[in-house]
Amino acid sequence: MKPPNLGDNTGDVDRLIKGIEKAFPGSHAVPELSLLKRAPAFLRKHGYEVDALLYEDGKTWKLFDLVPHRREKPLYGLVVDLGTSTLVVRLVNLDAGEVEEETSLLNPQTEIGTDILTRIHYAGQPGGLGKLQRLVVDSLNREILLLAANRGVPPESIAGMAVAGNTTMTHLFLGLDPYWLCREPYIPTANRFPLLKAREIGIGIHPEAPVLVLPNVGSYFGGDLIAGIISSGMAEREELSILVDVGTNAEIVLGNKDWLVGCAGAAGPALEGGVASMGMMAAPGVIDKVIVDRASGEVRVRTIGNLPPVGICGSGLIDLAAQLFLAGMIDVQGKFVAEKCGRSLQEIDGIRHFVVVPPDASATGHDLTLSQPDIDALLRSKAAMYTILTTVTSMVNVSLKDIGNFFVSGTFGSYIDPRSAIALGMVPDLPPETYKPLGNTSLAGATKVLLSRKARAKADEIRDKITYIELNVNQEFMNLFSAAKFIPHTDLSLFPSVRPLR
Amino acid sequence: MKPPNLGDNTGDVDRLIKGIEKAFPGSHAVPELSLLKRAPAFLRKHGYEVDALLYEDGKTWKLFDLVPHRREKPLYGLVVDLGTSTLVVRLVNLDAGEVEEETSLLNPQTEIGTDILTRIHYAGQPGGLGKLQRLVVDSLNREILLLAANRGVPPESIAGMAVAGNTTMTHLFLGLDPYWLCREPYIPTANRFPLLKAREIGIGIHPEAPVLVLPNVGSYFGGDLIAGIISSGMAEREELSILVDVGTNAEIVLGNKDWLVGCAGAAGPALEGGVASMGMMAAPGVIDKVIVDRASGEVRVRTIGNLPPVGICGSGLIDLAAQLFLAGMIDVQGKFVAEKCGRSLQEIDGIRHFVVVPPDASATGHDLTLSQPDIDALLRSKAAMYTILTTVTSMVNVSLKDIGNFFVSGTFGSYIDPRSAIALGMVPDLPPETYKPLGNTSLAGATKVLLSRKARAKADEIRDKITYIELNVNQEFMNLFSAAKFIPHTDLSLFPSVRPLR
Repeated sequence: MKPPNLGDNTGDVDRLIKGIEKAFPGSHAVPELSLLKRAPAFLRKHGYEVDALLYEDGKTWKLFDLVPHRREKPLYGLVVDLGTSTLVVRLVNLDAGEVEEETSLLNPQTEIGTDILTRIHYAGQPGGLGKLQRLVVDSLNREILLLAANRGVPPESIAGMAVAGNTTMTHLFLGLDPYWLCREPYIPTANRFPLLKAREIGIGIHPEAPVLVLPNVGSYFGGDLIAGIISSGMAEREELSILVDVGTNAEIVLGNKDWLVGCAGAAGPALEGGVASMGMMAAPGVIDKVIVDRASGEVRVRTIGNLPPVGICGSGLIDLAAQLFLAGMIDVQGKFVAEKCGRSLQEIDGIRHFVVVPPDASATGHDLTLSQPDIDALLRSKAAMYTILTTVTSMVNVSLKDIGNFFVSGTFGSYIDPRSAIALGMVPDLPPETYKPLGNTSLAGATKVLLSRKARAKADEIRDKITYIELNVNQEFMNLFSAAKFIPHTDLSLFPSVRPLR
Repeated sequence: MKPPNLGDNTGDVDRLIKGIEKAFPGSHAVPELSLLKRAPAFLRKHGYEVDALLYEDGKTWKLFDLVPHRREKPLYGLVVDLGTSTLVVRLVNLDAGEVEEETSLLNPQTEIGTDILTRIHYAGQPGGLGKLQRLVVDSLNREILLLAANRGVPPESIAGMAVAGNTTMTHLFLGLDPYWLCREPYIPTANRFPLLKAREIGIGIHPEAPVLVLPNVGSYFGGDLIAGIISSGMAEREELSILVDVGTNAEIVLGNKDWLVGCAGAAGPALEGGVASMGMMAAPGVIDKVIVDRASGEVRVRTIGNLPPVGICGSGLIDLAAQLFLAGMIDVQGKFVAEKCGRSLQEIDGIRHFVVVPPDASATGHDLTLSQPDIDALLRSKAAMYTILTTVTSMVNVSLKDIGNFFVSGTFGSYIDPRSAIALGMVPDLPPETYKPLGNTSLAGATKVLLSRKARAKADEIRDKITYIELNVNQEFMNLFSAAKFIPHTDLSLFPSVRPLR
């Protein structure tokens, strides 16, 4: 900016705004009070050579601070994935547009309750809602202090934030009563949130920094999924894609650049335990990959970190069951085939167990086994997944065969070997390269939204475009479910690539 | 609003916004966080029959609260004239669009200093700016509590506020450093202020209520004058009008619907004491009207409240001098004519005094006199006023004769008899009905802006349109000034209606 003189005595901030509106024709910049207070001295100190911090809010640009044009440290942004059990935080270098750090922490609300319904109930107690909000905000603030200290910058140099979470987590983060979310007719306070300021929520970054909370579609379809759609890019593609988030619920989005259909929610008591109850969390020593030799029946396992095995995680379990099936050691109904399993099969209290790792090879000194009830639970889960996929696609009159991209969200999804999931009949028999694990798409999508105005506009566009479908667990659904409990399916023509040993 | 149902589970606030955008097509409503927190319970309590509180901020409407559609008490608005010496506060019924109460109080900043420069200096001391702001805000808050209590409503039912003041008062009210206002090149922090929220300034009305601060033109031309222009309606008229605010400075606006020219500021040391130093403030017992019998030279006075006289105010002084001149008791140079004044003329310490009220008729027991220095000071003031008027009109090539409306702002202006001011040559010799006292135009204009979107848009339009002219006290100005020190003027042809006794 040209410093003022007697011939041009425009006010300091008016001058700044003129400059901004000249650089961005048609823009309309509005200063914050804190900027008005700070600007005159700051402009003079830096000889009117400054960079302005602005964010777009509807049709205006909010002007909230100034930084020296020549500065040593970059500006930062924060991205948060508000998971029910885990908070994941990213520190993004806004000048370079790059993620510099990522860290995850336990959602401290789990101390109130691990499931969402317990927290909604707790929010209704006196002081409950405030406490739930404070737990998350305080824990994010501790993380922010650490991240900023690691970079040698004050937390105020974090100048913007994007947040994605499911509808309940979003409500709790903003201090909004979740009471009506789980009560007919399931009304959120709002599905679209205004841009907020960090200080309004108590987040310890720049107090005037914008906090963008991704919009929800409804009580059971949150901003984390909108972020997922953005991250996958499916809403810009010609061909049909499906996005599956394997979390507490199986959440599914189907569509392309012209239309999007979403479906979520626990599919009733038939599917109790859901898709996520398979095995333990991925951690060092956990078996994540299994190969069964078809000739010898020998089981070879890989563990995370190549440590002695302590247990088996979901993807390992899927591998194990698929490999046992392909080796003919379990049948189409998931029952152990005694003559094939040989001495690995044991009966304890009338329940059959298959020894995956003998005591001398495990980290625990005990054997690690797969029981008949474990397989039964896995088959219910895989049947639920396949039934939901069939139901959703048939609701919009497309075939599972037409799917060009099968995106899998969630860290769990990243470990699953699609060939094993296909062998079990958990997912359709598509070419394995169709399956694309995307990792944490909530975090990735929110990062895009933080960095790009286009992605941000896309979030609202997706929200307005998507059709939410309620899954009805009716007789037809239950029939499909029963047919899908076989391995890979009662209708073998659906899985031409799956050929077990007999 | 129609309550939600399973067929339409739009979020509560999304539903509200849909309704607003339907009622105001093309509008874009954005909710405040506090409204999000409050809305779900409030909507259900009132069966979704509510009125929404919104204000226009740039191209969006801020949705900040709900009130029951059926309510007993109206919503209120507040208007404040931030005068250097006096704060005037109005309580406006927003439902009826009517002023319900008006009260004025001493600006508590006068305890720091009565003049603006002292306060600017004080603002530069540690804690000074904060204290100056707090003084005004605290004192307004006390008044707000009283006004609300009188109406039997909580202060939160005041849902909006408009504020007008000079540029320094506005800066101090917002906590903005006034340091650069009085230093070359005289740069305000800003001339246009964003809409603020009451809580940002600490004003004890609805915390999210919008506070509109009228824009300034520059360091010496504030929002009080923009409000004055709005109040006069001069910017909508075909014919030429002039608006004079007789305050600490003589502030003048000239123009019509096509153009506006403003001029303000102390006109240099020649005019020291200014236009405002004439006599005491209007108060009970103060002489505000004088008639001198041309035949007998008898002086008859009227006092405020018809009480025994205690002194003389500005308008009384103008009357007195004009009447003495018309009766031939002072001459064209303002000197007492001894043979006409007779025994009323006394000499004390070599200075001539004219006895206006004898000791037995006054409230003080002493006589009330007019001294030669009093007249000399008055003549300097009136000459300053006339010279400024001449200079400003000639700068834009119009004649004083072309003025269709001569608006006078300020309580002082309301008392002046235009015929006396003309007789003295203080103001041009226009038909007396051309003179229109408007009272507190800052308050009246700010009230219009609070109540009308059109008036609010007008304020910005006027601000952008007006040309500010710096008065140069050069040789030509001083020549005009000298010629104007005569009564009514050296050029008698300018005042054909003034005919004194000889």
